[in-house]
Amino acid sequence: MDFTEKTIQKDYKFRGRIMTVRVDQAELPNGKPCVREVCEHPGGVGVLPIDENGMVTLVRQFRYPYGETILEIPAGKMDHGPENAEACGRRELEEETGLSAEQMIPLGEIWPSPGFMDERLFLFCAKGLTQGETHPDEDEFVERVRMPFAELCELVRTGAIKDAKTVAAVGKVLLLRLAGDAGCAEV
Amino acid sequence: MDFTEKTIQKDYKFRGRIMTVRVDQAELPNGKPCVREVCEHPGGVGVLPIDENGMVTLVRQFRYPYGETILEIPAGKMDHGPENAEACGRRELEEETGLSAEQMIPLGEIWPSPGFMDERLFLFCAKGLTQGETHPDEDEFVERVRMPFAELCELVRTGAIKDAKTVAAVGKVLLLRLAGDAGCAEV
Repeated sequence: MDFTEKTIQKDYKFRGRIMTVRVDQAELPNGKPCVREVCEHPGGVGVLPIDENGMVTLVRQFRYPYGETILEIPAGKMDHGPENAEACGRRELEEETGLSAEQMIPLGEIWPSPGFMDERLFLFCAKGLTQGETHPDEDEFVERVRMPFAELCELVRTGAIKDAKTVAAVGKVLLLRLAGDAGCAEV
Repeated sequence: MDFTEKTIQKDYKFRGRIMTVRVDQAELPNGKPCVREVCEHPGGVGVLPIDENGMVTLVRQFRYPYGETILEIPAGKMDHGPENAEACGRRELEEETGLSAEQMIPLGEIWPSPGFMDERLFLFCAKGLTQGETHPDEDEFVERVRMPFAELCELVRTGAIKDAKTVAAVGKVLLLRLAGDAGCAEV
């Protein structure tokens, strides 16, 4: 079955620094008209760094929409021009943790809230890590937290970590390890 | 360290059927002013139904922001008033798949894009399933797809499934099964 909806007209409602909001007139597969709200987002990258001892590095930061300080994998928006996801991931990893990585193993892409938002978030596992200096943006308040991968799994399992990209990255690494094929031994 | 940012003023920019957008004047922990874009969302529920033979039921539907038809766990927004997440999950599961569940096992909550959005998405694993009639909303184009849980894992591992809540639900079930404690045998 073809479920495709056709765009008839786009009406932009808000243009911000992170999101652009529009309301489209569209057409359902049966030809009836419908209205679709879309939140446009530049996309992002999340990186799970795992060192040779199985230690991961996370960041703790305040997330304004929830009014809470939470633990997440290092991540950032793709807002520095036409860089590719891997380069963006390397930059964010280094800015937030001071780590540089020999290998950036792709863990695929997640779509955070596909009903109304177009964000594509690319996940990587960073290996072959070297610790350098941190140089966070001015006015960026980020704290590094290191722990064994097994402890991260526990924080996800118990619900202490709620950030979707962190939950997804942990799930992807587990699936790759369980599958145990050539590509999986790496993570 | 306290990283809390204080809200000084909220300025609403767009009020839609799904999202409400505001731009806040806020204050960083060091007292400097900052601007925070927030996309308010009513929250949602995602349900992974697994039957006694280990078969899962997914839904295929068109996601307008990406212009693609994708596979996901049954889900919906909490837009029917002050119902709790479990009741919302049961309703969405039945509407989209015709399944009713004896048990709704909580898999925790995910925050899809915490940098700028306040959506809380509650995940459940539905067990003890009974197949009834489907009665989708008019103008809702949804196709049911059944497969073994192991095949769902493969679709997540290879990146064929990108929907964040589906990736997260699979990761949570794996973690619970691997942990193997009292609560985990259930999923």
